[in-house]
Amino acid sequence: MTFEDQLKQKTEEIERILYSYLPAEEGFASTVISAMNYSVKAGGKRLRPIFMKETFRMFGGKGKVINPFLAAQELIHTYSLVHDDLEVMDNDAFRRGRKTTHVVYGEAMAVLAGDGLLNMAYETALKAFEESGAVKKRVIRAMEVLSGKAGLYGMLGGQSADVGLEKAEKAPDEQELRYIHENKTGALIQSSLMIGGILAGADEEEVEKLERAGLLIGLAFQIEDDILDVTGNEEILGKPVGSDQKNNKTTYVTMYGLERAGLDAQRLSEEALGILGGFPGKNKFLCQLVRSLVGRDR
Amino acid sequence: MTFEDQLKQKTEEIERILYSYLPAEEGFASTVISAMNYSVKAGGKRLRPIFMKETFRMFGGKGKVINPFLAAQELIHTYSLVHDDLEVMDNDAFRRGRKTTHVVYGEAMAVLAGDGLLNMAYETALKAFEESGAVKKRVIRAMEVLSGKAGLYGMLGGQSADVGLEKAEKAPDEQELRYIHENKTGALIQSSLMIGGILAGADEEEVEKLERAGLLIGLAFQIEDDILDVTGNEEILGKPVGSDQKNNKTTYVTMYGLERAGLDAQRLSEEALGILGGFPGKNKFLCQLVRSLVGRDR
Repeated sequence: MTFEDQLKQKTEEIERILYSYLPAEEGFASTVISAMNYSVKAGGKRLRPIFMKETFRMFGGKGKVINPFLAAQELIHTYSLVHDDLEVMDNDAFRRGRKTTHVVYGEAMAVLAGDGLLNMAYETALKAFEESGAVKKRVIRAMEVLSGKAGLYGMLGGQSADVGLEKAEKAPDEQELRYIHENKTGALIQSSLMIGGILAGADEEEVEKLERAGLLIGLAFQIEDDILDVTGNEEILGKPVGSDQKNNKTTYVTMYGLERAGLDAQRLSEEALGILGGFPGKNKFLCQLVRSLVGRDR
Repeated sequence: MTFEDQLKQKTEEIERILYSYLPAEEGFASTVISAMNYSVKAGGKRLRPIFMKETFRMFGGKGKVINPFLAAQELIHTYSLVHDDLEVMDNDAFRRGRKTTHVVYGEAMAVLAGDGLLNMAYETALKAFEESGAVKKRVIRAMEVLSGKAGLYGMLGGQSADVGLEKAEKAPDEQELRYIHENKTGALIQSSLMIGGILAGADEEEVEKLERAGLLIGLAFQIEDDILDVTGNEEILGKPVGSDQKNNKTTYVTMYGLERAGLDAQRLSEEALGILGGFPGKNKFLCQLVRSLVGRDR
């Protein structure tokens, strides 16, 4: 099977698990439930849960204890997109070729849908305690990482710094840009790898290495995104290109140029592959996935 | 000591605990942290954590395992107020006599501050596992209740139904109005009582009774709020009165009239007091607090 077929299969597997946790669209709150489900079903490769599951496999993890966390992580990622797209935030009307949540359901319902998704992420993750064979200590540690990397000292911190600069019409310096990329993009990749390891029984030293690998992958991924916004194909991406330039946004590319950006993305992903290759367990697909993120043309 | 002095003391005690969990206003995300802390420090009586702590005491609870949950519950309540007040939601510029978060920090930062508070609630609650003497099973159950009552089948569901009707300019029928009150207002009072009981070792039957008592208190509290919006004193309330009428909002008072509303609030709180009085442990302050919520003139 080609890498692309494997990835497609794994994406579908994650979606089966994810959709099994979605609420039924009924009752007096059915509109917000529709808005939540619409947001979750907008597609994407489900990279974060795939990273989580493949790391879990690499450390010999077995059973369903990972499933609630796969769903929870994607719910957190989805909530962040719904709120990012709001009129008062980035005001994006399309994502992956589809109308964004606030365009379909209105701004107020999109705020509530994002809130609902974030809250549901924690309700869902807690179900891991019920899985047979769940080691309570590991589930507790995984919940700490899930919430820590989503919050102020993770994704939300990076997003807030980014929005703060935009609203003040200020450009970030090198340090700020790195902070934003590490947190806004890197943090959820970090927690995906870490939670996969933790639930499979990785020790603290290994989890620290996963945290480092996740950071490198996240940065490489963000740089690639910035490159694609300049060189990408609108139809393959499912969103307009050139939006960074149009919004006068400082990116890795505007700060360092296309050539250095490409080289840095390559170097970062090589370092991540070095860390992943150093673990006793092997996972060929996981390494292919990291490689595929750099130089991709989606 | 008078009841009012006791309440003031207990509010201050909760605030000391709550503030000890607030993040330092530093780093690249300092603006959103300021917005979060501003929102939390807006005051109020901290009724939900007081209900939680007094129920914990009533069931003989000891130690600090309750502290992270006291803070988490107030963080959830605060996030819901910050998002409710947004321009795209209720568009309220003042609360408790103070400018609301979006007026001071802008709409985008207020969205992020609310998100940050909700996420921090779960980060904070997880710290209960670290407290000496924490019974893991009880903490897990308390987290399930915390998240369940805050989400789709609790506060967020009620809030979403309410907003959905407002945006559609439709009036709720009796059943819908009850659903909204039970969930938007009742759910967090329910979880406060339930978590207090759970962490102190109450059994499932007792927790069910607490759930019922919380519902009754929440409904009585909401009816009183609707009454005060008609009969209250603007200066004591710290917000404009008559806003329901101005917004053409269906409330308990517009549906059933002032007289029946007053009688129903009385009846509901009496039933709650009956449940609370039936437990072997006693808590005079808790009962006084329930009584004080009906016929209050703040």
